Amino acid sequence: MFARGLTPPYYAVVFSSRLADGAGYAETAERMVALAKTMEGYLGAESARSPDGFGITVSYWQDEEAIRTWKRHAEHKDAQAEGIDRFYEHYELRVARVSRAYSGPEGRRLIEKEKSDV
Amino acid sequence: MFARGLTPPYYAVVFSSRLADGAGYAETAERMVALAKTMEGYLGAESARSPDGFGITVSYWQDEEAIRTWKRHAEHKDAQAEGIDRFYEHYELRVARVSRAYSGPEGRRLIEKEKSDV
Repeated sequence: MFARGLTPPYYAVVFSSRLADGAGYAETAERMVALAKTMEGYLGAESARSPDGFGITVSYWQDEEAIRTWKRHAEHKDAQAEGIDRFYEHYELRVARVSRAYSGPEGRRLIEKEKSDV
Repeated sequence: MFARGLTPPYYAVVFSSRLADGAGYAETAERMVALAKTMEGYLGAESARSPDGFGITVSYWQDEEAIRTWKRHAEHKDAQAEGIDRFYEHYELRVARVSRAYSGPEGRRLIEKEKSDV
């Protein structure tokens, strides 16, 4: 579920959406995740959707060229068209360069313990 | 629910988490959103959490200085400490610069219609 252990810099595509018509959506989304995994430069993805239909999927990529190649993939373009025509009430898509990252609480917890030992 | 109409470049903090202990989490999260809104350079936020406890919150900021100031805010630091100690089983936090953004399907749908008229 987490995309772990990625070393910046890399790129993130943040895709926020609200579903209009969810019929067949899960199957298409699952297929796109499986397909993305086969793409060069794909690093991972994370996805959450609230019961009210609002969701965020973030996919991670080595560089912008990998994102462009994925955007133009024929089967992905079909899925995009279906999303535009039917699945989504609204979406926002942002391409961003990740410059730094942190994870926890494992490491953080340890740091706090060491501090309190002093 | 959507952060709309933002003009790149701007910054995104992508925070992915899995809840361990959700008691009191909603209240703390709500308070942090209300507090973030009062910060200079805050542009908006989006949040989704699946019923299984995996969630993604993305907050948007004008510049990195705004993110640093928010990170150091006293009440936010208390909330971070509570998150580390209790709320989160695991989290990943990434700071990224948004270089371009798209939204739809309103505009896209129109473009597709125009194309098919040709």
